[in-house]
Amino acid sequence: MDAISIIRAKRDAQPLTDPQIDWIIDAYTHGTVADEQMSALAMAILLNGMTRREISRWTAAMIASGERLDITGALAAGTAQTPHATATPGAPGTPGARGATPGPTTDKHSTGGVGDKITLPLAPLVAACGATVPQLSGRGLGHTGGTLDKLESIPGWRARLSNAEMLDVLRSAGCVVCAAGDGLAPADRKLYALRDVTGTVESIPLIASSIMSKKIAEGTGSLVLDVKVGTGAFMKTVEDARELATTMVGLGTDHGVRTVALLTGMSTPLGLTAGNALEVRESLEVLAGGGPADVVELTLALAREMLDAAGLADADPAKALADGSAMDAWRRMISAQGGDPDAPLPTSRHQHIVTAPATGVVTRLDAYDVGVAAWRLGAGRARKEDPVQAAAGVELHAKPGDEVTKGAPLMTLHTDTPDRFDYATEALTTSYDIAPLGTEVPVAPIVRERIA
Amino acid sequence: MDAISIIRAKRDAQPLTDPQIDWIIDAYTHGTVADEQMSALAMAILLNGMTRREISRWTAAMIASGERLDITGALAAGTAQTPHATATPGAPGTPGARGATPGPTTDKHSTGGVGDKITLPLAPLVAACGATVPQLSGRGLGHTGGTLDKLESIPGWRARLSNAEMLDVLRSAGCVVCAAGDGLAPADRKLYALRDVTGTVESIPLIASSIMSKKIAEGTGSLVLDVKVGTGAFMKTVEDARELATTMVGLGTDHGVRTVALLTGMSTPLGLTAGNALEVRESLEVLAGGGPADVVELTLALAREMLDAAGLADADPAKALADGSAMDAWRRMISAQGGDPDAPLPTSRHQHIVTAPATGVVTRLDAYDVGVAAWRLGAGRARKEDPVQAAAGVELHAKPGDEVTKGAPLMTLHTDTPDRFDYATEALTTSYDIAPLGTEVPVAPIVRERIA
Repeated sequence: MDAISIIRAKRDAQPLTDPQIDWIIDAYTHGTVADEQMSALAMAILLNGMTRREISRWTAAMIASGERLDITGALAAGTAQTPHATATPGAPGTPGARGATPGPTTDKHSTGGVGDKITLPLAPLVAACGATVPQLSGRGLGHTGGTLDKLESIPGWRARLSNAEMLDVLRSAGCVVCAAGDGLAPADRKLYALRDVTGTVESIPLIASSIMSKKIAEGTGSLVLDVKVGTGAFMKTVEDARELATTMVGLGTDHGVRTVALLTGMSTPLGLTAGNALEVRESLEVLAGGGPADVVELTLALAREMLDAAGLADADPAKALADGSAMDAWRRMISAQGGDPDAPLPTSRHQHIVTAPATGVVTRLDAYDVGVAAWRLGAGRARKEDPVQAAAGVELHAKPGDEVTKGAPLMTLHTDTPDRFDYATEALTTSYDIAPLGTEVPVAPIVRERIA
Repeated sequence: MDAISIIRAKRDAQPLTDPQIDWIIDAYTHGTVADEQMSALAMAILLNGMTRREISRWTAAMIASGERLDITGALAAGTAQTPHATATPGAPGTPGARGATPGPTTDKHSTGGVGDKITLPLAPLVAACGATVPQLSGRGLGHTGGTLDKLESIPGWRARLSNAEMLDVLRSAGCVVCAAGDGLAPADRKLYALRDVTGTVESIPLIASSIMSKKIAEGTGSLVLDVKVGTGAFMKTVEDARELATTMVGLGTDHGVRTVALLTGMSTPLGLTAGNALEVRESLEVLAGGGPADVVELTLALAREMLDAAGLADADPAKALADGSAMDAWRRMISAQGGDPDAPLPTSRHQHIVTAPATGVVTRLDAYDVGVAAWRLGAGRARKEDPVQAAAGVELHAKPGDEVTKGAPLMTLHTDTPDRFDYATEALTTSYDIAPLGTEVPVAPIVRERIA
């Protein structure tokens, strides 16, 4: 077995055999296969594709490159030995507090969008309804934000936990949002970094296997995928999004993880904020029973799918938002990860208001442009090692269907580095359309398709 | 300008702009663009191709990455300052000895085949006819042999010369065969090594630009390309060989080098030997006025093209073989590069004879299989840094059209490492066909097409 013959096979559009896939993932993880060989193979995969069998084996090999967690087993064992009641001070006896028996595990993954803070209200909401939510998340790269970056705007909150700490947070709060450990799918970690610099990100087989190897290795019992489609998503067309979703649902099912995917719209930003602390603030509104309608709608739709996949179809997530039990779970989770749920969130040192150039109805507000503007203001990073600004981002005052008056605020831009305002507003010049008052604006549903 | 956007453009089958090509070749030469980025781009080029304009610019950028020699100018200058007469002892006054005025420069490049020792008799033959032949050659990789490896079986002979030494050899012998200096097209040297390990060798744009960047930078006035086609060649079909030849002739012409290509057959080995010292011995037979008919035929065809391209169409290469003047030029060249033309050539320590399994007529003898067998016996190398055995190789006793008797020798295998015989004979099991006596064997001409 050697790298060159494997590269040549895929280059010549032949399917790779199971032993070829096992060998190259293992050899790449251990450094026998060089980065320049793997990048040539990644480009050949991007251009010539992989069969369903190849993607499944590729995913299995990436899982096998590292440890595979058994959260359900570990929680049950821990409960038997040292039963945790509600361990977090400040929340004893509140509705939704954790009992001694952990609920079934369920998780959610989003392919990434602009203003997509859904994990923040969703994880505690689903925990409050009785499931256990082990959410291993990533950081933002490019124009989409990262869940860990958002939560790090909460003073004291820690993203990096040991496996033991992660289990402790799950026992006390029913949910955890943290960084994946280094032992989980190391082949994927290496390959993801390589793809990022070699123009080989946009491959459905490589995206699907990357996401699913991490989620399967994490050991969740069920999984709901939020596959974004539209201008602000990696998948621009419904066809591509459907292919990605179908591939990932198949991979989860192959590995015994009950998996469902929703195709959801991402041509308009979700909610009224894009930026780290700005999105935490909006998530708190949702947990308090308010918040923008689209964020609430998508949070509830995903919560119902997760609860259904976990075998808790009778739970009522709308009630858990209304009665404060979701907010209680949030407070327990933030506290258990070192954060202060009552501390004030950071605010930006400089603001710039973009005003409406005409009176009328907003008919379009482009998710990609808003994402790029937030990124340029400092909310995102160009390289993995860059820091992000907690308070930077874009606040929207109107969305498609809303009426605006000439000269009134359309968006507020936030940053600590005001020299970036020009660069950010440049991304927004053609980001919206305003039509005469009375123009009908068709509203597409957030959830477009369900794939199970 | 950045590597990722250039990779993505070619990945998406867009032609690269001139500034993109100039930038990436320069940045790769200087290490700003990483090997893993260049290999992803090479794979995208292999799969999505390049336009004629892109190939031309790519070649120009590789030439510009290093020095460009002006052999004609340097020889003229050197002659004016310190005229060399026949400087080599042992050959004063012999026919074909060099005068004070160097002839026009001309060179030949073969795309590589099995038993292709043509450069050895050809360079001194063309020099004996009045041209100057600066032949910068390579080493063998894979199943095809390398000209420098063959010549290094001559005791004392040196492949590495400084530019000044190369000019001295040219002045005294009229021809030189040596390794290209490090200053010549360094971008190509880096890219060639990378392609070798990343499965990106077999791309017509990359092969054409690699060959032509070195030949144009070398500064020859005219160039004849021997583009091999058949089982033992990199180009298996006439269509591919024609495309490669047409591309290279276009590149040469664009850069002011008078360029002609011959498409020649490479499904049967050339001559009766494949291996380093074995091929030198056969070349000496040709220079002595004998040798196998196919080797003589191709040597004369290429010599006539080179002389014609150099403006010496009246020269008679057949006469220069017959009257010993080509042999004299050979002796001068070998001596000038430190070799002893009279020293005995190395012979193998072990031989194994493959006998004919039946009486009949040989109808097929596969070049690729014979090349692989010679390589396995030690004549070639798997990695650039491996040594080769001078005496190893395959000696053929019959070729297509020849009659053989059951049990009589068909081939003799030579090596210093007899444990390799099994591995070598394995490559030969289906390498030939023998038909009943009297079967007609059609003989294809060596030269299939001429492209100018």
